[in-house]
Amino acid sequence: MKRAVKLTDVALEVVLPPPEGLHGRVAEAMRYAVFAGGKRLRPFLVLAGAELLGADLDGAARTAAAIECLHTYSLVHDDLPAMDDDDLRRGRPTTHKQFDEATAILAGDALLTVAFEILADPKTHPSAEVRCKLIAGLAKAGGSQGMIGGQMIDMLSAQRSYGQDDIVLLQRMKTGALFEISAEAGPILAEAGADDLERLHSFAVDFGLLFQVTDDLMDVLGDAATAGKAVGKDLEQGKQTLVTTLGLEGAKREARRLAERASQTLSIYGSKADALRALPFELLDRTS
Amino acid sequence: MKRAVKLTDVALEVVLPPPEGLHGRVAEAMRYAVFAGGKRLRPFLVLAGAELLGADLDGAARTAAAIECLHTYSLVHDDLPAMDDDDLRRGRPTTHKQFDEATAILAGDALLTVAFEILADPKTHPSAEVRCKLIAGLAKAGGSQGMIGGQMIDMLSAQRSYGQDDIVLLQRMKTGALFEISAEAGPILAEAGADDLERLHSFAVDFGLLFQVTDDLMDVLGDAATAGKAVGKDLEQGKQTLVTTLGLEGAKREARRLAERASQTLSIYGSKADALRALPFELLDRTS
Repeated sequence: MKRAVKLTDVALEVVLPPPEGLHGRVAEAMRYAVFAGGKRLRPFLVLAGAELLGADLDGAARTAAAIECLHTYSLVHDDLPAMDDDDLRRGRPTTHKQFDEATAILAGDALLTVAFEILADPKTHPSAEVRCKLIAGLAKAGGSQGMIGGQMIDMLSAQRSYGQDDIVLLQRMKTGALFEISAEAGPILAEAGADDLERLHSFAVDFGLLFQVTDDLMDVLGDAATAGKAVGKDLEQGKQTLVTTLGLEGAKREARRLAERASQTLSIYGSKADALRALPFELLDRTS
Repeated sequence: MKRAVKLTDVALEVVLPPPEGLHGRVAEAMRYAVFAGGKRLRPFLVLAGAELLGADLDGAARTAAAIECLHTYSLVHDDLPAMDDDDLRRGRPTTHKQFDEATAILAGDALLTVAFEILADPKTHPSAEVRCKLIAGLAKAGGSQGMIGGQMIDMLSAQRSYGQDDIVLLQRMKTGALFEISAEAGPILAEAGADDLERLHSFAVDFGLLFQVTDDLMDVLGDAATAGKAVGKDLEQGKQTLVTTLGLEGAKREARRLAERASQTLSIYGSKADALRALPFELLDRTS
């Protein structure tokens, strides 16, 4: 995990624009948001999947950097006053608090844009077909039928009544889709077969739901220091989560079930997949 | 021009998500912003360039749609209260006025994302190399070193003192870069040689500056009905433009010089380039 963070941070340093020139402020804000001590979960999925299937690690680190840029933009925009209105992120002022709203909007837009610029570059993979697959997959995962659509449903959730299926759909769109393309990136970069792609995909679907359940549990059980952000906001805003529909114990049971199934999906790879298979249980430990 | 609008609108109808499902509101807002009766100048450049150099028009229409999505996102975000704070755009309420700020931010993000999804699709061009070139070009033009960087400089312009060179740089980044990739898309799609690419590029550089000068002139000379938006805002906000540095008559002379040079650049193509060569003079007519 530490190695994945290191590789990704080196790649990010190379691909992010320098904070220079009349427009340097936008690059400053991009770097502020990206180098905020995030867990780099998505980069870990990319790099572990790439290593498992024998893809080149330099290209994988660039892909991880691209996905992290897209993930970071979503945090910057979600924190805005018109959205979740958060002042703290990972224990630091959010980007619009540190800079200003206009700069945060522009820095988010630029992080989203640079994600695709990174992937389109031949340095990411010699095959343009592979690069286009990554771009198409990331755009789909991050777009109106994926992450952005999920955020839209989430924004409306305080005014509407959702069932458990709706909440699973919301969460799969809002956070799951990006985990899915992160795990699929390894097989895509390795030009692996459909079986490998399908296994990594299934793993990521379970992992994504698990991530959201543990995040919802943290909002109820955690404190701001451990969570790195304000807690108790879901209840306060009347948001529906799997904790509100399944109850605390039900949500914990569901989390364990998802972790076990995710890990089981990759058992065919033996010890080579140990790091990936351990990840769901590390998430689970946050809430026990 | 009318044909280019028609082809682009048909392509946009196909590529934009349907306003359905729990997240349908974001697709509604995307469509509201895109189908607002824009002039489709950038699509015209794409299609006219593609036709001039013999590229397939279906792929060109998809490329035009992608660039128009990216252009539209920039308008939606620029109109936000934290940015230019505009209530009207093309005579209608801006997207955040018609919906709300959160929806406008998300719809803008989704339009930016879908632009790359459209270009990555094999329906845009059979060669993945060509698709990656378009994606790289659009990401560069729209990114922190292009359009977004230009908008950042523009946001800061009321607090700083810029010289004429700075203003030309600002405008080339903010509006020019997107015109440049629009004009280059034709040669890229046609897999034309470096000479063709360079000619279309030079044309677009002059055209982009001309566009900005005439836009600045309209802000001083025009009325809201002709301009389709509030006028007099530049002076009110203390923004520096070529009109403030060159004076009214100087800016008009500069506009004519740029139109003539842009048109001259394409004279080598003879009457095949008539539509493209006439465009700068149509812009010029808006301010005479």
